[in-house]
Amino acid sequence: MEFSAEMKASILVDALPYIQNFYGKTIVIKYGGNAMVNDDLKNKVMHDIVLMKYVGIRPIIVHGGGPDITGFLKKFGKESRFVSGLRVTDKETVQIAEMVLVGKINSEIVSRLNKLSVNAVGLSGKDAKLIIAKKKMAVIHNMDGSSEKIDIGFVGEVETINTELLNDLLDQNYVPVIAPIGTGSDDSSYNINADYVAAEIAGAMHAEKLLLLTDIEGIYHDYNDKNTFLSTLTQKQVKDMIAKGEISGGMIPKVEACLCALEKGTGKTSIIDGRQAHSLILELFTSQGIGTQVIR
Amino acid sequence: MEFSAEMKASILVDALPYIQNFYGKTIVIKYGGNAMVNDDLKNKVMHDIVLMKYVGIRPIIVHGGGPDITGFLKKFGKESRFVSGLRVTDKETVQIAEMVLVGKINSEIVSRLNKLSVNAVGLSGKDAKLIIAKKKMAVIHNMDGSSEKIDIGFVGEVETINTELLNDLLDQNYVPVIAPIGTGSDDSSYNINADYVAAEIAGAMHAEKLLLLTDIEGIYHDYNDKNTFLSTLTQKQVKDMIAKGEISGGMIPKVEACLCALEKGTGKTSIIDGRQAHSLILELFTSQGIGTQVIR
Amino acid sequence: MEFSAEMKASILVDALPYIQNFYGKTIVIKYGGNAMVNDDLKNKVMHDIVLMKYVGIRPIIVHGGGPDITGFLKKFGKESRFVSGLRVTDKETVQIAEMVLVGKINSEIVSRLNKLSVNAVGLSGKDAKLIIAKKKMAVIHNMDGSSEKIDIGFVGEVETINTELLNDLLDQNYVPVIAPIGTGSDDSSYNINADYVAAEIAGAMHAEKLLLLTDIEGIYHDYNDKNTFLSTLTQKQVKDMIAKGEISGGMIPKVEACLCALEKGTGKTSIIDGRQAHSLILELFTSQGIGTQVIR
Amino acid sequence: MEFSAEMKASILVDALPYIQNFYGKTIVIKYGGNAMVNDDLKNKVMHDIVLMKYVGIRPIIVHGGGPDITGFLKKFGKESRFVSGLRVTDKETVQIAEMVLVGKINSEIVSRLNKLSVNAVGLSGKDAKLIIAKKKMAVIHNMDGSSEKIDIGFVGEVETINTELLNDLLDQNYVPVIAPIGTGSDDSSYNINADYVAAEIAGAMHAEKLLLLTDIEGIYHDYNDKNTFLSTLTQKQVKDMIAKGEISGGMIPKVEACLCALEKGTGKTSIIDGRQAHSLILELFTSQGIGTQVIR
Amino acid sequence: MEFSAEMKASILVDALPYIQNFYGKTIVIKYGGNAMVNDDLKNKVMHDIVLMKYVGIRPIIVHGGGPDITGFLKKFGKESRFVSGLRVTDKETVQIAEMVLVGKINSEIVSRLNKLSVNAVGLSGKDAKLIIAKKKMAVIHNMDGSSEKIDIGFVGEVETINTELLNDLLDQNYVPVIAPIGTGSDDSSYNINADYVAAEIAGAMHAEKLLLLTDIEGIYHDYNDKNTFLSTLTQKQVKDMIAKGEISGGMIPKVEACLCALEKGTGKTSIIDGRQAHSLILELFTSQGIGTQVIR
Amino acid sequence: MEFSAEMKASILVDALPYIQNFYGKTIVIKYGGNAMVNDDLKNKVMHDIVLMKYVGIRPIIVHGGGPDITGFLKKFGKESRFVSGLRVTDKETVQIAEMVLVGKINSEIVSRLNKLSVNAVGLSGKDAKLIIAKKKMAVIHNMDGSSEKIDIGFVGEVETINTELLNDLLDQNYVPVIAPIGTGSDDSSYNINADYVAAEIAGAMHAEKLLLLTDIEGIYHDYNDKNTFLSTLTQKQVKDMIAKGEISGGMIPKVEACLCALEKGTGKTSIIDGRQAHSLILELFTSQGIGTQVIR
Repeated sequence: MEFSAEMKASILVDALPYIQNFYGKTIVIKYGGNAMVNDDLKNKVMHDIVLMKYVGIRPIIVHGGGPDITGFLKKFGKESRFVSGLRVTDKETVQIAEMVLVGKINSEIVSRLNKLSVNAVGLSGKDAKLIIAKKKMAVIHNMDGSSEKIDIGFVGEVETINTELLNDLLDQNYVPVIAPIGTGSDDSSYNINADYVAAEIAGAMHAEKLLLLTDIEGIYHDYNDKNTFLSTLTQKQVKDMIAKGEISGGMIPKVEACLCALEKGTGKTSIIDGRQAHSLILELFTSQGIGTQVIR
Repeated sequence: MEFSAEMKASILVDALPYIQNFYGKTIVIKYGGNAMVNDDLKNKVMHDIVLMKYVGIRPIIVHGGGPDITGFLKKFGKESRFVSGLRVTDKETVQIAEMVLVGKINSEIVSRLNKLSVNAVGLSGKDAKLIIAKKKMAVIHNMDGSSEKIDIGFVGEVETINTELLNDLLDQNYVPVIAPIGTGSDDSSYNINADYVAAEIAGAMHAEKLLLLTDIEGIYHDYNDKNTFLSTLTQKQVKDMIAKGEISGGMIPKVEACLCALEKGTGKTSIIDGRQAHSLILELFTSQGIGTQVIR
Repeated sequence: MEFSAEMKASILVDALPYIQNFYGKTIVIKYGGNAMVNDDLKNKVMHDIVLMKYVGIRPIIVHGGGPDITGFLKKFGKESRFVSGLRVTDKETVQIAEMVLVGKINSEIVSRLNKLSVNAVGLSGKDAKLIIAKKKMAVIHNMDGSSEKIDIGFVGEVETINTELLNDLLDQNYVPVIAPIGTGSDDSSYNINADYVAAEIAGAMHAEKLLLLTDIEGIYHDYNDKNTFLSTLTQKQVKDMIAKGEISGGMIPKVEACLCALEKGTGKTSIIDGRQAHSLILELFTSQGIGTQVIR
Repeated sequence: MEFSAEMKASILVDALPYIQNFYGKTIVIKYGGNAMVNDDLKNKVMHDIVLMKYVGIRPIIVHGGGPDITGFLKKFGKESRFVSGLRVTDKETVQIAEMVLVGKINSEIVSRLNKLSVNAVGLSGKDAKLIIAKKKMAVIHNMDGSSEKIDIGFVGEVETINTELLNDLLDQNYVPVIAPIGTGSDDSSYNINADYVAAEIAGAMHAEKLLLLTDIEGIYHDYNDKNTFLSTLTQKQVKDMIAKGEISGGMIPKVEACLCALEKGTGKTSIIDGRQAHSLILELFTSQGIGTQVIR
Repeated sequence: MEFSAEMKASILVDALPYIQNFYGKTIVIKYGGNAMVNDDLKNKVMHDIVLMKYVGIRPIIVHGGGPDITGFLKKFGKESRFVSGLRVTDKETVQIAEMVLVGKINSEIVSRLNKLSVNAVGLSGKDAKLIIAKKKMAVIHNMDGSSEKIDIGFVGEVETINTELLNDLLDQNYVPVIAPIGTGSDDSSYNINADYVAAEIAGAMHAEKLLLLTDIEGIYHDYNDKNTFLSTLTQKQVKDMIAKGEISGGMIPKVEACLCALEKGTGKTSIIDGRQAHSLILELFTSQGIGTQVIR
Repeated sequence: MEFSAEMKASILVDALPYIQNFYGKTIVIKYGGNAMVNDDLKNKVMHDIVLMKYVGIRPIIVHGGGPDITGFLKKFGKESRFVSGLRVTDKETVQIAEMVLVGKINSEIVSRLNKLSVNAVGLSGKDAKLIIAKKKMAVIHNMDGSSEKIDIGFVGEVETINTELLNDLLDQNYVPVIAPIGTGSDDSSYNINADYVAAEIAGAMHAEKLLLLTDIEGIYHDYNDKNTFLSTLTQKQVKDMIAKGEISGGMIPKVEACLCALEKGTGKTSIIDGRQAHSLILELFTSQGIGTQVIR
């Protein structure tokens, strides 16, 4: 279907209140999942981010690594072993993860953004000590109800975010693109879940919004009943649903990231469906919104 | 017809290259004609300007007075007399024109813009000596081919534009709205054609664009043949058409304004149809463009 | 009488402590009454303001409208009706008032100041939402002691002063000249008493001084006994005198303006006799002072 | 005689055009002669300088040493010997001169100014290498028409003025007070004629004016005929008068200082009578002016 | 041997003239060779750079990749093939090179520097389009004297350096660490010789010095006679020596980098022996200097 | 003994942690005693200060006058009389002291520093009212245990330090050199003990360190037993030692200065032996340190 220029103009003007609402605000985008795999979606996300930048938003991108890391580990003949969903990560594994995240994925995102005439700068948590990390232990729940902590190597969690470099870059109109590698006090690299990194950065930057691009529509009361879609949840509601087991599995880190970001100072958070074209623009600039937002 | 959110998002992203193109640029809009009379159009122009501002453009509005001045003069029992298309303007007439332009029309535009959450500031040429004017004589062409100049009072033309106040306001994110009143060296008020004021300001500010909102579609090679519409003309072509009489009447001040602006440093100029909804957005942010542009 | 140059020099130097005292301070001047009518006085007030500017003061001018509004209303064939001293102000009346205040009186003051080489900028309460107003009801006191409120149209009182534009202009060395028109939440224009506007602006700007130019010498204990002139009154004394009826009539809005300004953060206030030549300079830069000052 | 406040106000306003003329301009004052000896005159000069500062001028004071140096040398039992009007200055002599100039005279001027609420800062040519000097030889004209150069020790002339410190201090609103001591490439102190130091500084700073406070009324065509007073001279006229011997003796360094300042970039220069009360204010802020000005 | 504190103090003070000489200047260091392999040397280079930073120098680090790239290629089962000394670089090879350079080597340098309390930021040529590259062809010289160009894939040479990001980071006290990956107009990654990248950056930044850390003492007239060491060579001398074959082999890219840097605006260049402890400090802050400097 | 360049480099790098520690910090140096007399020591102190400046420290110098004042008083035939260790200081005496301090000693220090390419600016307490002083009475302890206060003239103590001028100069990279002359409310000059002036300035500036250059090694528990040297003392320990008479005589003003500085906001204080070459550098940049530090 072709649109008339008049229709286009009127749609642009309809976006005005949304544009005004986010003007000058910082928005953190966790970029991952399908939107990082499908070339057409990649391209659309990049356009969305550039548009955000040009209408006055200060976007920060945090990306994950996903299938690429596993792929490269395989090429190196390393089998990935998981404990409680966390990859056991020896020195060589974290080295390869860092190379893939920083030297391949981050690099490619930066390149795509720059091609669209913004100035993107790739960062890892090591740059100016952006992300100070500490070791994260895996927790195993035994049959007898007891639990124990297992050292799985260089998997980390965020200890501190140093926002100074981010603010310096944003103030000079750069778009920071961040790989989820933290630096330990012992100078080791730590691989950190990108959802949590995005949440911590959104919190430390007092971002207006945290947007998590995922491969699902959002949260359902009953996942099997598409009519029970939940477009807004409060912190309390989320905590209740986790307690009741209504939220579980891969959705846990997403909602935990939302809760963490809210607690540390982010305005609002949204879990949005990155499989949908222009999902960022849809979420920010149309009345419809998409996905599930988690708010105070 | 209802648009899906996806369509809307994709239209927004399609505008990106246009937005990038005008980012940080100054654009002068001559606001007049029907777009100043019809309430729905008024409203749409205001939204267009606010959108321009929010996507990084530095808009400057110059408005005319049109029917309001004549209306008020009538209420005061003053008949308007014209010589060569210029209103004979005695002291009292220019006083009433200034009151209408500055105290009514300018005021209303400022108010409408501010309501949409930009910071508009109303100016006349007297503020910080923005527009220094001198008397403009009417020229009468006699039957015998000779011509003579007639003093018709306080009708002015621009002598100097002092851009400092405009730059100060633009740098602090205000939207200047300018009434076409100049101040003479003798401290008198002069009423000046708003098209010329807009052209001089666009020139002095080295604006990227001058947009003249008019009540016509643009320029035709043959006005009676709608198939001869001209979407782009060079300075030279315009001068030729004037010489040949192909451009005449009310269109003359429009194209002269375009030529003047181009000579004094404006990038491009366009005569656009203000009767069309969102004509500014159409012109700037769609591939279609509207009206006739006059370029170097 | 001619002064020797030596005398002149010595008088200039005598002003030094006063100049030092006001250096860098904001002073709000309510300009009105006879000083706005008599051409010689007009001229002198303008010189006084320019001198204030050049010796380091940040002056803000708020002007009234006085006879001009009534005059123009008459020309339009509109009779002015008053309730409790307030003009009943319909849509058309406030329109004409705004045109006169903004398009004629303000414009003329700006022009006169600029001619003396300061950069004056004319403002109304609509510019960048400088003055947010709400409807002011007239109060009628009935014979039986009861009172009732009467809607008299577009007469307003100040709700909020947005000082940002004023500070931006003062910081860049402009002299703001303000017409007492406020903008309502419904976008209507409201005509506001200029004394109150000056007081609110002096308060919001934390001005060092509010100077009200009036057509009287100041306040007398007993108006009929010229020996009872009061050169200084405290807030409390003023309130007592109002309660006792010793201050009444046209003096009420003046002293109320002083009280309001003091409460909202102005340092000192003075009611001074604008009929006297160079009354502003006299008040600020000589030991004598003139008029009655109202202080904390 | 007592002035009415009205007269005072009117005199202040009369000074306005002069104040406007010098606003923001740098003026160098050579302070010396009687105005440095008589306590009442001292006091008046200080007030003049403070007033200059408060009406927006950037004053720089250069002072001489005069009788104080000779006095202290005597106390030390050192006889002063002169060659061609220049004091023969051995190491000890320049040491004492520096102590008197920097540690006594400069210090006292700074103190007096600060007492009047400006921030004066005392400098010598050594501070941040303000004045780089070289040895000045005395010239003796022999009977046979030949001339020879005599080394008289640590008498210097200006080689370079480093304006950076002066600009830094002026930009932060300090009043620099400068003792005429230069620093040689060999790190020695040099005593330099204060008239020349003032001239060089006025030149290097592109000052609007150089004012030399002296103990004479100015220049006469015929010194014995008070009717031949010259209130303005061009560079050329001065050079002619020197050549003809009409200017001679102690007036020579004054007019040479004026010529030097004009050549190096000063706007205008004046030789004024420091014995007259408030001579600086008279010169700058009244129509009369005093003394003789030397212009291009 | 133990030094007395007095000796230490005196050595520190002896460095003062060198420190003053480089204060505020930009120095580009090509970091490579043995100094990147030996852990003790690595550590010492890092200390040298941090000291440079703290005594007021603006250091920029450009590193190579060396054995690490070959090592990782092997792990992936890719054999490296060379044409005229340049690695044939297919898509996968440049991908692995980029991962190693950006995600491993750069990352480690940044980490080491940050541990010593400077704020290092890792960059590749893709960040804000720092290094725009184009394909570099290998040149084969045939037996018959003819030569031909061979496409060896993603080996690049510098087209443009965008200094803006570097200046922004240096101005805010960050230490940029740059991996020699360029970005092509087709968005491909190009692997570029680090010596040339360092030279181009030194040129574009108008650096005071380019320091190339190598694994040789410098240049000898006759490499077999250690007595023919050359501590300084001019551009012309170097060109002559190349022409005569006195400089050849691996030294060619080093001297070409020096020549290139000098031509594009660098002050001086030095080829220094990175195998020597603290060679940077030796070169910059002692009278001895080390290695061979190539100057205009 | 000659050092190899390698040793030198390694010593420079060893200083790095100390340099980092003081980077950007303000350090006040009381310059006096032998280090002001011996030409070689003078020279070394100057180099130490310049080095401090170049490695990022903000040094402030306060100097005493010592033998020079007594010498000049003698030349003037004035006998110095002391009460409780304080010089009886009449008007003429303070005048000569000021001339010597400001016009000779200060001047010479400034000159020496500037020669080494820093920008030193000489100040006395009069400049911009840097040191406001009041009269200090001498206290005489009578035989019967009573004490009385004796007026000994223009000996002062610090009332207020105005840090603004110091901060302005430090921010623009000047090195302030301060003579211990204060200005009284009556505009008199007061001679103040330089140790106390340094302490008050260190306190007011919240300096990182106060360094007092003296002619002793530091504090001993038992002055006669060189084995009882105390390298660190707390405020409390010092107070106890004074109470017990273990600290007495000329050491009293030194430790009182330290206590005063600590109380008013200085980080640490040290009494160091100025007779040792490069004692400042030893104290700041080597592990050894010298003298006795007094800390909280």
